[in-house]
This record gives sequence, C-alpha cells and structure tokens, in this order.
Amino acid sequence: MEKVFRDPVHDYITVTDSVISELIDTAEFQRLRRIKQLGTSSFTFHGAEHTRFSHCLGVYHIARRITDYFSLTFPLEWNPDENLLTQCAALLHDVGHGAYSHTFEGLFDTDHEAMTREIITSSYTEINAVLRKVAPDFPEKVASVISHKYPNPQVVQLISSQIDADRMDYLLRDAYFTGAVYGQFDLTWILRVIVPTENGIAFKYSGMHAVEDYIVSRYQMYMQVYFHAASRSMEVLLQKLLARAKVLYIQNPDYFVLNSPCLVPFFEQKANLQNYLRLDDGVMNTYFQAWMNHPDSILSDLATAYINRHLLKSIKFDRDKVGAEQLTVLADLVEAAGFDPEYYTGIHSNYDLPYDFYRPSSERPRTEIKILQNNGSLTELSAISPLIKSLTGTIHGNSRFYFPKIMLENPDFSKHIVNDSFVAEVTTTTKKTSEQDSQQLLLDETINNEPLV
Amino acid sequence: MEKVFRDPVHDYITVTDSVISELIDTAEFQRLRRIKQLGTSSFTFHGAEHTRFSHCLGVYHIARRITDYFSLTFPLEWNPDENLLTQCAALLHDVGHGAYSHTFEGLFDTDHEAMTREIITSSYTEINAVLRKVAPDFPEKVASVISHKYPNPQVVQLISSQIDADRMDYLLRDAYFTGAVYGQFDLTWILRVIVPTENGIAFKYSGMHAVEDYIVSRYQMYMQVYFHAASRSMEVLLQKLLARAKVLYIQNPDYFVLNSPCLVPFFEQKANLQNYLRLDDGVMNTYFQAWMNHPDSILSDLATAYINRHLLKSIKFDRDKVGAEQLTVLADLVEAAGFDPEYYTGIHSNYDLPYDFYRPSSERPRTEIKILQNNGSLTELSAISPLIKSLTGTIHGNSRFYFPKIMLENPDFSKHIVNDSFVAEVTTTTKKTSEQDSQQLLLDETINNEPLV
Amino acid sequence: MEKVFRDPVHDYITVTDSVISELIDTAEFQRLRRIKQLGTSSFTFHGAEHTRFSHCLGVYHIARRITDYFSLTFPLEWNPDENLLTQCAALLHDVGHGAYSHTFEGLFDTDHEAMTREIITSSYTEINAVLRKVAPDFPEKVASVISHKYPNPQVVQLISSQIDADRMDYLLRDAYFTGAVYGQFDLTWILRVIVPTENGIAFKYSGMHAVEDYIVSRYQMYMQVYFHAASRSMEVLLQKLLARAKVLYIQNPDYFVLNSPCLVPFFEQKANLQNYLRLDDGVMNTYFQAWMNHPDSILSDLATAYINRHLLKSIKFDRDKVGAEQLTVLADLVEAAGFDPEYYTGIHSNYDLPYDFYRPSSERPRTEIKILQNNGSLTELSAISPLIKSLTGTIHGNSRFYFPKIMLENPDFSKHIVNDSFVAEVTTTTKKTSEQDSQQLLLDETINNEPLV
Amino acid sequence: MEKVFRDPVHDYITVTDSVISELIDTAEFQRLRRIKQLGTSSFTFHGAEHTRFSHCLGVYHIARRITDYFSLTFPLEWNPDENLLTQCAALLHDVGHGAYSHTFEGLFDTDHEAMTREIITSSYTEINAVLRKVAPDFPEKVASVISHKYPNPQVVQLISSQIDADRMDYLLRDAYFTGAVYGQFDLTWILRVIVPTENGIAFKYSGMHAVEDYIVSRYQMYMQVYFHAASRSMEVLLQKLLARAKVLYIQNPDYFVLNSPCLVPFFEQKANLQNYLRLDDGVMNTYFQAWMNHPDSILSDLATAYINRHLLKSIKFDRDKVGAEQLTVLADLVEAAGFDPEYYTGIHSNYDLPYDFYRPSSERPRTEIKILQNNGSLTELSAISPLIKSLTGTIHGNSRFYFPKIMLENPDFSKHIVNDSFVAEVTTTTKKTSEQDSQQLLLDETINNEPLV
Repeated sequence: MEKVFRDPVHDYITVTDSVISELIDTAEFQRLRRIKQLGTSSFTFHGAEHTRFSHCLGVYHIARRITDYFSLTFPLEWNPDENLLTQCAALLHDVGHGAYSHTFEGLFDTDHEAMTREIITSSYTEINAVLRKVAPDFPEKVASVISHKYPNPQVVQLISSQIDADRMDYLLRDAYFTGAVYGQFDLTWILRVIVPTENGIAFKYSGMHAVEDYIVSRYQMYMQVYFHAASRSMEVLLQKLLARAKVLYIQNPDYFVLNSPCLVPFFEQKANLQNYLRLDDGVMNTYFQAWMNHPDSILSDLATAYINRHLLKSIKFDRDKVGAEQLTVLADLVEAAGFDPEYYTGIHSNYDLPYDFYRPSSERPRTEIKILQNNGSLTELSAISPLIKSLTGTIHGNSRFYFPKIMLENPDFSKHIVNDSFVAEVTTTTKKTSEQDSQQLLLDETINNEPLV
Repeated sequence: MEKVFRDPVHDYITVTDSVISELIDTAEFQRLRRIKQLGTSSFTFHGAEHTRFSHCLGVYHIARRITDYFSLTFPLEWNPDENLLTQCAALLHDVGHGAYSHTFEGLFDTDHEAMTREIITSSYTEINAVLRKVAPDFPEKVASVISHKYPNPQVVQLISSQIDADRMDYLLRDAYFTGAVYGQFDLTWILRVIVPTENGIAFKYSGMHAVEDYIVSRYQMYMQVYFHAASRSMEVLLQKLLARAKVLYIQNPDYFVLNSPCLVPFFEQKANLQNYLRLDDGVMNTYFQAWMNHPDSILSDLATAYINRHLLKSIKFDRDKVGAEQLTVLADLVEAAGFDPEYYTGIHSNYDLPYDFYRPSSERPRTEIKILQNNGSLTELSAISPLIKSLTGTIHGNSRFYFPKIMLENPDFSKHIVNDSFVAEVTTTTKKTSEQDSQQLLLDETINNEPLV
Repeated sequence: MEKVFRDPVHDYITVTDSVISELIDTAEFQRLRRIKQLGTSSFTFHGAEHTRFSHCLGVYHIARRITDYFSLTFPLEWNPDENLLTQCAALLHDVGHGAYSHTFEGLFDTDHEAMTREIITSSYTEINAVLRKVAPDFPEKVASVISHKYPNPQVVQLISSQIDADRMDYLLRDAYFTGAVYGQFDLTWILRVIVPTENGIAFKYSGMHAVEDYIVSRYQMYMQVYFHAASRSMEVLLQKLLARAKVLYIQNPDYFVLNSPCLVPFFEQKANLQNYLRLDDGVMNTYFQAWMNHPDSILSDLATAYINRHLLKSIKFDRDKVGAEQLTVLADLVEAAGFDPEYYTGIHSNYDLPYDFYRPSSERPRTEIKILQNNGSLTELSAISPLIKSLTGTIHGNSRFYFPKIMLENPDFSKHIVNDSFVAEVTTTTKKTSEQDSQQLLLDETINNEPLV
Repeated sequence: MEKVFRDPVHDYITVTDSVISELIDTAEFQRLRRIKQLGTSSFTFHGAEHTRFSHCLGVYHIARRITDYFSLTFPLEWNPDENLLTQCAALLHDVGHGAYSHTFEGLFDTDHEAMTREIITSSYTEINAVLRKVAPDFPEKVASVISHKYPNPQVVQLISSQIDADRMDYLLRDAYFTGAVYGQFDLTWILRVIVPTENGIAFKYSGMHAVEDYIVSRYQMYMQVYFHAASRSMEVLLQKLLARAKVLYIQNPDYFVLNSPCLVPFFEQKANLQNYLRLDDGVMNTYFQAWMNHPDSILSDLATAYINRHLLKSIKFDRDKVGAEQLTVLADLVEAAGFDPEYYTGIHSNYDLPYDFYRPSSERPRTEIKILQNNGSLTELSAISPLIKSLTGTIHGNSRFYFPKIMLENPDFSKHIVNDSFVAEVTTTTKKTSEQDSQQLLLDETINNEPLV
C-alpha cells in the first residue's frame, strides 16, 4: 500500500515499505509535527514554521533515492539488504529532538542524541515495536547507524558526514521556507554522481562543481540564516527565561506544579523519556504565556518579551581581542539603568567550520569528501577545488553581546558601538552624509528579517 | 525607518510607514504567529504550517502595491489619503481569528469577525492605541472597511470582494506552503490592470485572462486543498473532542479548571476579549495532550486520535439524494461495533461557489468582477469569458460521512461503498483486474496527502 | 553509454538506449536545432527562441518515463517490447517540420506530416538507417504510430491524443520560454495516475483535477500565447512576402536562382525530400535579408518589414456576422492610401476546440479522455468534471483583419474600430475619462508582448 | 505610451521612455534577435538559444531599476539627468556584437566594441538618429559611457565593472536558459543595497553576502557553462572552418562571391559597418550549409561536422608544464591517421579571474567592489569577506587539446590520456572495478551537456 506525501521541496515523497509507513504513524514520530525545525528562526523569517516532521520525511526521501539507485547501479559495491536500515535511520535520525532543543539541553542536561537512541531502543515506544517486527536486533542496528557505530561506513556516511542526506534536505528545506535563495544546489546531479566505495561514499569527478556549490550554499545558509542576530536574540531571551524559572522553582515549586506541570521533572532533574516526549513548542509557549502573569517581575517581563517578540539588541565583538571583563563596562551601564545584567545581558557565539579534511589527531575528526577520478583513484575534495580549499579548516561566525534596546539611547553606552561592533575606546569621527545618517539608524533598530544586521 | 521582511511568496515585504510597523509589533498581531493559516490542513499537507501572521503581512503587501500604484497612476480616480486606511485594513482584516476558528465558533458561539472589530475598536488593545494616534476615529474607520460599511467601495473591494488582496495572497501562499501547483496565477499582471472606477475597482480588458486564471486557480485550490477529505477528518475529530469536553465540563468542572484553564470561560459561555486572545493552537494542543489521560474513555480516545493523527475514514454521499435516515444504517453498524455514534460518526459538508455575478435578490449578493473595455465601458466578467461563465453560479463540493477505520473490515458496512461513495443498495459487480484490486485498496486506506481521496 | 542533456524544463533528460542516442546524432534530427518551436512567436515573446530539437527531446523524455513506469507497474496490461517503439515515435514525431511550416505549407503544398513519414521510411536518410538496424520493418512501425495506424491504441494515444507526451511537453516548454505562467500543470502527478487499459490509456480518478488543470492550462496557452495578435501579424507578413516572391519568380527566375537557390524547387513545385531538408529558419531569413534590396518595391518593403519587425496592425471581427464584403470598406481605404490590399491587408483566423468527447460521426473524431474509477469502470472526463464540461465541444478564438499601421491616423478608417473590434456602422459615443484616453492609445499601438491586445 | 515585454527572467520589462522604445524598434537593435547570446553553447545546452536582443533588454531593465531607485533615494548623490544616458548605454552596450563574435574577430580583425561605438555615433544608423533627437552630443555621450571615458564613474560602473547591470543580467539569463542552477543570486537584495558614492558605486554592508553569492555564482557559471569542453569543441571547429574558407577564397574567390556574398568583404579585409551588420548567425549557418558541398574535402568535411554537430574530442593539459612541442606527439599521430593537423587539431584555452581588487600597476586595473560600512567608510570587498579573499587574484580555467574522435581508438594515442588529461609518459596502472570501467567510457565519449567532461 503506497502512501504519497505532497512535499514543497521534493514534490512527492513516496512510501512503499510498510515499516516506514508504520513508523510515520507512531505517536513519537507524529510528535515531530509539534516541533519547529528552526526553533526561534521563525521570529526572524516568518515563513520558517516548518517542522522536524517534514525534515525527517525529506531525509528519508533522499536516503530512499540513493539506496534505490545504489541497488540498481552498484550490485557489487552496495548491499541492498541495507536499504531499509538506511531508510529507517534517515527517517529517525532526529526523532529525539525536543522543544527548543539546543537551549533546553544546556539548562536541563538533556541530550537529544541520547533521546533518539532511547526512543529507538526502549521497548516502551511505538517506534521500537515497529522496528522489532523487522528483527529483534533491528532497533539496535538503527541506533548504531545514527551513533556512527555501525560497521559499514557507507550506511553511516549517508546519514551523517559532511555531505549526507540530513544536510542535503535541511539546506533545501530551510531555504524554501525562509525564502533565502542561498540554500539552492543541484540535488539531482549530486544524486547522479554519488558512488559507494570500499570505505564509504564518494562523488564522481563530473559532480565536483555540484559538491562545491553544496558547500558554498551551506556556508551561506549559516552566515545568512542560522546565525541571524535576531533569532539569536530570541534564543538568549529563551535561555534567560528558563534560567529564571529554574531559580524560582526552587523558591516556590507549587506555582510551577500547577502552571507548568510537564516542566517539573526537568526542574527536579529527574526527567525520564515519558516526561521528555510530553514537551513540545506549543506546551512550552503555553507555559510562557501563563508566566506572563507570574508575580516575579523578571520572569513575567522576560515571558512577555519572548511571547510578543520584544528583541534584545546586540553588537558583535571579537572574542580573541575583547575579554568578558571589557564588556563589563556595558553590563555595568545596563545595571545602572535598572536591569539585572544576569537576565538582561547575554553573550551568544555562533561559529561554523564549513568544511575540513580528515585530521586524525583532531578531537572529532571529520569524514572528508572524496572525489572519484576517472581512473578509479580517490582524491580529497579540497586538494582539487581551489574554492573549497579556501574554506577548508577555517572558522566563520561571530560573538554578540545582547542588551535591552533602551540602552541605545544612552550615549555612554552607544559610543562603544561602531559598525555594529564593540569598541573599547572611541576615537575616530567619520564624516557622514545624510544617507549615512539613515544608515546609522539601521544600526539602532534591528530590522526584522534583515539578513545579518 | 524601513523594515524588511523576507517572504517566500512576495520575496521582500517592505514597511515604511511607522503605523504599520507599530501595528506589527503589538501583542495582538504577534499572537497571529501562533495560529496556523490552514488549521487542520497541516495534518494532510505537512508543509502547510504557515501562520496567519505571514498571510496578514502578505495582504498588507498587496494592498500597499495597489495603493502606491493607484496614487501614482490615477490621481483623479483614487484618493491617496486612503492609502494608510486601506493598508491597515488589509493588515488587520484577520486579526480576530482564533485557534481552529471555524470549528471553535460553531461550538462556543464566538465570531472571529466580531473579534476583529473589537480588537480594533476596543480601547484596551495595543492595536487600538496605535490606530488612535492617527486620528480618534481611525480605529472605527478601519473596522468599517473590514465590515463593508465604509462609504468608498474602492477601499472595501480591495479588502473584500471576489478578487481582493486577501484572496490573492492566500491562494499564492497556501499553494506555496502546501506544495500544490494549482494556486499560481499572474499577480504581477493583475496588479498592472487593476483600475479604480467610480463604484469600486475593475480590471482592464488586457488582463481578462489573468483574472480567469485567478478564478480557476481558486476553484482548484478549493477542490484539491481546502476540501481535502483527510483535513476534514481531523476537523470532525476536533469538533467531537471539544463537544465531549463541553459535556464533561458540566459534570466535573474542576478537572478542566485545573488542566485547561483558558477554555473555562468558553465552557461557561461568558468569555470576553481577553479570554479569547489567550487561546492559540499551542494552548489548545497542550490541553488536548493533557486530556489524553482523562478518565473518560471517549475524551481520552478522541484526544489521542487527534494528537497522534488517527484519522476517521469517510465516504461521499449525495446530499440531494441521500437523507440522514439512510445513513442510519451505517451509524447503527458503528454502534453495534461498540462506538458511540454521537462521537465516532460525523457528517462534513464543504461547498463553494467559485464565482457569481451580482444578484440583488440574493441573501448575500456578491460584488461582481468588472472588466474595463477600451472605450471605457464596464462589462461583468462572465458575460465575456466563456470559461468563467461555466463556473458562474454553480456550487461545487461534497458531503462526507465519517466513521472509525475498523468499520471497513466489516463486509456489511463496506458493501455500501462504491467508488468512494455511499450506495444504499448494492447490486452490480464489476469485473476487476489485479490492477483494480490495488485500486480498491486505495479506497480503504486514506492516503496522506493524496489529492482528494 | 548513458548521455545526459541539461534541460530547463525536465532538469535532466537521460538517454540510455543507443538507438535513441544515434537518432539524436543524425543530420535530420540535428537540423531541428535550426527550426524554432514557435515560429513567429519569438517576435512577441523574446524568450521563445527554443527549437523543435529541444521539444522533441522533451517528448521522448516524457514517453520514456511513462513506458518505464508502465513496464514496472503494469506487466499484464503493457508490453515492454513496445517501449523503444514508443520512445522513437515520440522523439521523431515532429522531425518533418520545416521552416515556418504552417505558413510555408499553405503556399507550397508541402506537408510536414508526410515529410515526417518520408524521413523515417526513406532509405536515404540517416534516421532510417539507424531504425533499420533494430529491424527491417521498424521504420514503418514508427511511422505508423505517428500516423495513428499502429494497431495498439495505447502506443498511438501516448504520442497523439488529447493528452499525450507531445502536448505535455510543449505546454510546459512554451510556458517556460515565453515566460507565460499559464502553461503550468502537475506533470508528476499525471505521470503517476496514467494507466494502460484495454483500448488505450486512462487516468485514475485521483488524478482528475490534474487532468482538468492540464486542459485549462492548454486553453490559456492558446488564448494568451499561440493566438497572440502580434505573432499573427508577423505570420501575415511572412505569408504575403512569400506569395509576392512566388509571383516574381515566374516573372524573373534568375534573381531567385542566384539569391535564394534553396527555394527554387518550391517555386517550381517540384521539391523533393533533399530540397526540403535544406530549408531552415536561418536560410529563409538570409533570403529575406537579400530580398530587402530587390528592385520590386513590394517585395523589398515586405522583406524589410519582416526582418525589422514592422508589424501590421489589426482588429477583431466576428466571422459569423461580418462578411468579407463588409471588410471591403477598410481594404478600399487601404488601397486609397496607396497600398496594394493584396499584400498589405490580410485576414488571420485562429480557433481552437479545447476538448471534446468522442463523436463517431465527426470528420476527425477525437479520442476522449477516460477516467478510471476505483471499481474499474471508465468514465469520459466531461461527464464528471463540470469545469471541463463547460469547455467541451466549444470553439474559442477569433478572426483578425490586418492592415498598415498608418491607417489608424485616418479617421474614416479608425471610426470602424471600437474596443479592438470592427464595427460596420459607428453610432455610440462613450464618455471618456483621461484614463480612458490613454486606454484608447492602447488600441492604436500594438504593445509588444501585451497578452492578447 | 508604455510598452511591456514578457521576460522569463525579470517577469515584465516596462519601457516608458519613447527614446528607449524607438531604439528597440531600429533595424540595428532588431538585428540582435538573430544573434545568440552564447554562440556555440547551444550545441551543449539545448535551451540556450536566447539572443543578445533579450540580454540587452534585460540590462536596460536592471539599469532602469537602479536609476529609478537612485533618483528617488539619493537626491544628493545621484543626478537624475543621467538616467536616460545610463539606460541607453545599458540597452546598447552590446549592439555591435556580430555572429559568433569572438571566433570571428580573431580571424577577420573586427572588433565588436569598435562596432558598438560606430553604430552609436555613425550618422548612417537608425540608432544614431534616435539618439541625436535627444541632443546633438548624446550619441557621443552614450558611446563614452560604454568605452569607460565618460567622466562620471557612477554611470560607467553601472554599465561596466566587476558587478554591473550587464553581468547581473547575463548570469541570471544564461542560468535560466541553459537550465544551470548555479547562476542564481539575490538580485532584489543587491538592488536594495547599491548606493552611489562620490567615486562610483558601492554596496551597503547588509548586502555583503548577496554580493559574495553573486561572485561565486559567476565563478560557477564560468566553470560549468561558459568553459564547457563541448561548446569549445564547436568553437574550434568554427575557427578551423572559417580559416580554411579564408585560404580557399584566395585560391578561388568566385565560389564565395556566389555562395557567401556577405562574407566577401571580410575575406578581402575591407569590410565596413554596412557589411558587418549584414552578418548574423543564420547567414553564417546558411553559408556553412552551402559549403557542405564545396569540392575541397577539408572545407566540406568541417562544414558538415559543424552543421551536424560532430564534435572534436579533447583532453586537458597544464599549460605551465606542457609545451606545444610535447603535444606534437599527438598531432603527429593525428597526421599519421590521415588528418591535416592544421585543421583537425587545435588548442583552446579558457581562463577567468573571478575577482580582483584595484591594482594600479596592472595592465587593465579593475574597479574593485566597495562595501559601505554603517559609519560611512568604504572597504574593499576581499578585505572583509574570507570567501571572496580566497578567489581574489586567482586564475581559473584550463587549456584543452582538440582532435578527431577516432583517435581514441588508437592505443598509442589514448595511452597519453589519464583522467581527461594529457600525460607525456605513461607509467602507472590503477586497479579498476567494473564500475570504473564504465567510468573509463565516460572519458571516451563526450557526453552532451555533461557539466565539464
């Protein structure tokens, strides 16, 4: 019984295997409909309301296309018995993601990768029951692919490497829903040149430029979308809000037991899988809306700011040159203005390594991208692509200091801001035209959706 | 201070007027981020998670393009003083929509149009405060445009008529996010041929085919997307779930006071604006998730079905030929199988009139679409378009009977189903090939996203 | 050895069968690179420079997708031995098209369908040699599919019916290259619901709306693109130009033997296949450019007008009400202005029947579109689609009278024009606003690319 | 009187100024309809039949958008009196391009830039007559913008710099018509951040990533489309064909006077503007088709190869390491096989410098791209973009040696080919799997449209 999903990114996603179909129908997988793929980014890019459900379907779809193609074209190099395993791992690779995972994990010691494993291997989940029907050890096998421990590197690399089904889907999907044009690359061609080799996967030489384009697209999506200052402002707010609630819970648990019951096990640091699965974006927002009326003025203020999108403002600083102690001058001014700097200032750093070759001595060595030459030899990508060579091993991103918008009206504060960046000592005065005056305003007001203010 | 929004449908949406910018930043408008544009359709089309926030911005954008163009091109026919009014009405036309509005309104006597008016005119809202700064009577004026009472029909028709900024945006937007290809039409050309006339708006003859295409696109979106059987299944579930909760509230209010506080004023039938604004999709879903553990087996079962997307199945029936009494045979079988037919069967009818000319004697006469000929005369669209003539005044859609999926295994039940439709008496046997056998399966299983199963 | 073509419409077109690959490499097929798909339409839509080569590749691609799908899915209903035959017929269905075929055929008694057959079956062509290698009777089989005589209606209907691979490609392709948005339809879905039946092909019920959309798209492309008044103006010029040359050839063949050698066999009415294959758009235009210096002022003037795009202007007339004798009044005024009406006026009629069911008594009965219901029964499309019913059996289009642009300055002439249409007697005067004055100008000047002026 | 052009790249192109409208209607501009934008690339990418006419319209459109925006937004920095000048220069910047310009110029000492100037300034052209009506010195002004001599660098840089209206249009247009995905960039955003400065144009900091993306897109279009080996094969053929004709003309001019009259002035090296304007792609191809029957077997063979697309094959070589003398070994083998190496082998080098900063000592110093910081300071792009820094000043491309396809069957010849590259001495043997065997075939057969074989 074939099922078909209309997908704006891949047109139609077809499911023919009943195992996949049953996995999609489980409570744990349907739950992904209630968790946004990009967390707070939808506050910046209003189209980006798409969910992890749609992303996971998309990763499955790409994995299915690759495994079908491998089975047909590479009978010696690829074992079709691993098709279903690969597809299940693709579908389930993110099933442990929770509400606002990244922020949440930092505060409550949860780990979405561990949750993914548990959802797959715990005998209490519907997903486990479906997988067990395939074979008793099938859940463990699926989990081992996701945790990189499965012995066949081909399968592992299709799910997780520097160019895998996961990234291919999210770049296209996030570009589509945010409206960014940067995430486009030639998926069709990449899926034509991918080949299984003895030690993993590689790409034919005729596809080198498509792979280059994929890496540049990925780089641009990080710079333009994922690291957007406004989304990070909302993340800082969220982090402060939850941190304040955690403190208040200790003082007065009853309020939270009544108004935010599903969070209590996390405040108590004894949450289990069941507790984890009860949280989603809607539940969290419902609690934040309740907290808008909490007697603690910091909690209610931060909750209101989050729900109604009152952004903290920010400036960049060079983390190699500016120490936390230098930013104290700003924090002090914030405090002098009546805000608790613990909750009303914050640092948010976002850095990415667009591509790297294999460095065995590295802490987390990367699986490099290999290009298959016509004569059968394999070459590491950056060795033949000058464009990629320039991005290899380099770190991109920035650190930002967040603070209340009203501080911009304080000249002692704003004198430390030049070109959206922190300066310890202000010296130079640049002549301004009237045009530049309005430019200056651009700094003061965070523009919704402005790429990289 | 210009603001720019990255919009996947319109590329960039620019806001230059600070009134618009402040309206967007109000709590009531930001709340629209938490309400999906298409309600339960996202259960069928997983991309359709877009919110009323994005739609309202889009309607504003189209209205701004039209009013800017009118101001520049038609100094005699259009009054630029009405630009801001038109844009505010466009932005706010849906601000009173609530969570799952259509289902909710039927059960709790709320009315999103009345709410829209109240949000605009009540002195307690942030939106009202922004509008009042323009002029004391400005909120009333904006409200009167939305309720069709504003004296200038040009302004009213731009916001609400058979071809208005609202519809133009939602067709393009819903097509984009569902992935349906049918909602496309040539917006750019339509915005080139629109003209203000003495009694409203019209379209130059050279744009007639673009207007035709818009109407056909709209028709197709209704047939393919808005009336999809699976989305309606979720609406039936939702309606039954809320109806059951309403009954249980009377028996035991305490449970709901504790677990679903924001719904209580609605159960009590004394909700005010403040209560209304507290509800959104996330709050409702949070309550449903709580109800999954309610002791009443019907409530918990329906809540579980809704949250985990266990669809009711359905068949079409001809409401002109099949009376409710004839469907009793099915309802009786459902009851015999152990389901309360009050909560486990339901009828859902969806009908649309794609286009009509002005019929003064009609209950809700429509503003017809007028085509401006080269010599200045105005002609009603269907009088010169054979394509539209064929759709004029005709009603399209169907009625469906919903029931538990397991009933399909009962031969006494399934014998009443032929080609997805109810038959009272079964007589004919059609020869089937093996292909048709799998076709038959297509009926039995509702395919996720299958256009019009 | 696989070949891949980058195609803007279908992304990649893959050729795996060496027969197809060799056919593409023949001189007769490569010649299609020099013949535009839409003839004079590129004078109106400057993007529409695409060639018959690209269209033929596209038709092959769609045919290959369908035959691959049929072979896999319908082992009982479809015979995979006909895959190559179907694909060859698809690729070659238009191979006999010549330069400006439609105009040329009317004047020189050529017939592109007969030429297609001859190119395929004549033992002198490279195409025939490739096909003969498959089997001695293979060329005849391919030709019989194209001429509807092949016994298996499935194969014939895939190549030529009211919804076939030819039309599916040209709608998408012409829409893409003209930039018209109207030619879009859901090809992917149509290719999912197509089924081979005993007497041809049909479409599953779940694809009915996609088929509807295809027919409406086709209708709109006819109205908006194929029947555009400016393109037809260029066709009239071309027809007059060639007619004048034909007359002058009789008076003085030497000039043409020297300056337009490849046309001589056609002037002499004794052209053979070799002569036909020597003509293409570039050759014809080269001759026209030479004729710009011919001593005959009509020939040189028409050649100059054609090459430099000096359009004749036109008005619509109702061929049921306005006889040729009534248009004489206009022709007389043209003559009085010093133009030979034989060459400077012309009538161009374009009519289309968007869809029809099978009418056995009709001269050219059409193969109707059949919808396969879930119970295996077949229903004719218009019987279940109100949208299509309205278009069934109806004729759309218009007749236009063409004349020199300067005539519009003559009030005796222009008084016969109201709303772009001919009126025999002028009576009414409509009040005009200043806006309408510029509207009036719209009539007088044919706007380049204005859809359907 | 507004004119509108339907453009697949820019949707609609609007012309309101009658000067622009009259320029488009001139014979010299209409002639651009008969010259392909990408020359022989259409033999590789069959969609790329678009003409210089469409490109020139597109450049005008971008220039108009920029000048309209500058006039409105930068009243102090931009002089609206230069709008028309800028738009005319944009429209006409390529008007002197001829048939297969680049190849033709090398052989016949013509120069399309000089021709552009002459068409604009010669009192014999229709274009000059239109421009003269604006002001007597207007033609000279337009020509001076195109030749970089106009005093205002803002105007010059909009038409010609490392990011100008010309390049912006051709990247988008060539991407659209070839079907390559690599040419996409965010034109809308770039046109939002462009600013006129004292010494030219700059881009606001908030647009830096869009500018980066433009440069990477340009780089990729060069690597993937413009430098494609198959298109260059056709260029080599064309060059050899014309060279052979030139030699034969000296031996026997009469044949060419009769069969290719418009080329004679070029063979005689005394062509004037009138002669130049008579040539276009169609005229050239018509002559080549005639030459297919020329008694000289080399000329007829090359003409046949060109018309029927019989490609020469090629291999890369490193021009820094491989001298022409080393390639002699291949040329000798070609000669031994019976081919005149003068006409059947050739070297084709394509190199590009994606971006460079201003180097005053360079022969042709480039106008660098400037980024406008919030405080009004200007920074050169590569100084703040690591991505662009990596491309700055680096040369990309390759040199290829072309030869008859049959040579690949000669083992003495093919042993010099490894991974599509020339090796002087063959030493290594790489183990091959069966997959690599078919990979090897990929080298031997040039795949039509295969990106960068």
